[in-house]
Amino acid sequence: MVVRTPLVPFPRISPSLLIKPESLQPTGSFKLRGAYAAITANIEAAQKYGVVAHSSGNHGHAVAYAAALLGVRAVVVVPENAPAVKTEAISYYGAELVTVPPVLAARIAATEKLVAEHHYVLIPPFDDRQVIAGQGTIGLEITADCPDPDPVVVVPVSGGGLISGIAAAVLASNPRAVIVGVEPELAADARESLRRGERVAWPAAEVQRTAADALRVEQVGALPFAHIRELVSAIITVTEEELLDAVRRLATEARLIAEPGGAAAVAACLFRAGELPAGRTRVAVLSGGNIDPALLATVLGRVR
Amino acid sequence: MVVRTPLVPFPRISPSLLIKPESLQPTGSFKLRGAYAAITANIEAAQKYGVVAHSSGNHGHAVAYAAALLGVRAVVVVPENAPAVKTEAISYYGAELVTVPPVLAARIAATEKLVAEHHYVLIPPFDDRQVIAGQGTIGLEITADCPDPDPVVVVPVSGGGLISGIAAAVLASNPRAVIVGVEPELAADARESLRRGERVAWPAAEVQRTAADALRVEQVGALPFAHIRELVSAIITVTEEELLDAVRRLATEARLIAEPGGAAAVAACLFRAGELPAGRTRVAVLSGGNIDPALLATVLGRVR
Repeated sequence: MVVRTPLVPFPRISPSLLIKPESLQPTGSFKLRGAYAAITANIEAAQKYGVVAHSSGNHGHAVAYAAALLGVRAVVVVPENAPAVKTEAISYYGAELVTVPPVLAARIAATEKLVAEHHYVLIPPFDDRQVIAGQGTIGLEITADCPDPDPVVVVPVSGGGLISGIAAAVLASNPRAVIVGVEPELAADARESLRRGERVAWPAAEVQRTAADALRVEQVGALPFAHIRELVSAIITVTEEELLDAVRRLATEARLIAEPGGAAAVAACLFRAGELPAGRTRVAVLSGGNIDPALLATVLGRVR
Repeated sequence: MVVRTPLVPFPRISPSLLIKPESLQPTGSFKLRGAYAAITANIEAAQKYGVVAHSSGNHGHAVAYAAALLGVRAVVVVPENAPAVKTEAISYYGAELVTVPPVLAARIAATEKLVAEHHYVLIPPFDDRQVIAGQGTIGLEITADCPDPDPVVVVPVSGGGLISGIAAAVLASNPRAVIVGVEPELAADARESLRRGERVAWPAAEVQRTAADALRVEQVGALPFAHIRELVSAIITVTEEELLDAVRRLATEARLIAEPGGAAAVAACLFRAGELPAGRTRVAVLSGGNIDPALLATVLGRVR
């Protein structure tokens, strides 16, 4: 169902940096792991009523694809500014698309209304045990494949489902591993939440300004925040410039296509290495590759 | 030493098409497998005298990288029109670069002179048992990973080392698999050789016109030709337009970066599907991803 992605060296930084390219999943992001886990855990109701998801794009794409393979009807609620590369894919797999204003509250309200009206099974984007467990399979693969038994695993943070699953899976087998989250400076709610010891929301207007559309969530989920407090060593931030530079270097030096949000962990390893624990292999999760081709073309033309 | 590359679905054609992305090797192409096998098979002489290779780019990059890791001096002879992305990488890993006119005979003559003068160990690009055995590890991985026990394995052909190794490895474990080679129309020497039953050379001036710089070899090797006659079912050709369209579709639909020659097998699966045996899974080897970033940017801007 999913690709068992390899750890790919970034040779000019090697052997200290390995990339886990979830961009190679059939839907172009890690989201397929959690979506498939959540649909199959509720397969009888899903087949009877259908499923609904709200998403900045990649989770909706994953739900649409998994639902199509499982013969399940799907409805996906997306913000009206989601990239065409993502909404087009959702429609391609036969899911119904519902667009709402670009704030998390609007997505949640529209989704709850659909659940109440049609009994659809809700497939949450991150705040759900099944979804977190699905994303955790990445951690199992990292533990199996990484030559360094005590790596630093660096993971983009949006709603927090990805880092929660990876942290739980990696640390269960090796408590000496270190898990670090990465956010754009423009959507640094998880770092601020960790600092304050309680979940805080980031201003929606600022979140909308990051090129990392996959990370445009104002607040981490409750269950993910519990994981982050317990299991994550630090959350660091990267600039917009660093995100786009990481996209370019992944393409030209590692032959990997990343979307800006998907490159956040790589950006931290390239440009914020001093903020990471020294002397260990770094495994950076490249969480998605659904970038607008025109943006990728522009980034490739940037002066080195 | 090399990445065990997964089989990646091309989802909008799935489940009939799987990609083997050798672009994920640390040097961006499959060539590292054969180069490493050949250097280590001659490691004592290599460490004493150094190694020399001639290459359209990717083999030289692989020899430079493997030699650097093994502490071996390397000299690489390249055609003067090799892409900068490839020659720059050879120099980056500390190999000495020698440029010659863009015909195979010039590369061979310069290499032989260096061997005679300095006792360097020659690491041939394709006409060598160790090199072919190294490329054959791709076939072992395909056999282990492909869910269809009788796939059609589609492979770009230049000097023929890649298809020779893969054909030998795949057919040894499953004689019912089918191996098909792919060449650009502008460098169709292997197809013509197979038709005539003897090796023929393609006009160098025409070979130079293909965008597939990795496939600019006028004639398959003698040992590869023996493999091709014995083990390869057919060799088909693709146009320049089809190569560039395959590069674009790999980037936008499978998040994989291919160079034009590296995309030849994918181009055949996308645009010449009728020339391939029906009813079987197709495994297309994406042999390399060292594309000039400016060309990739241009290809991404092409109208669909």
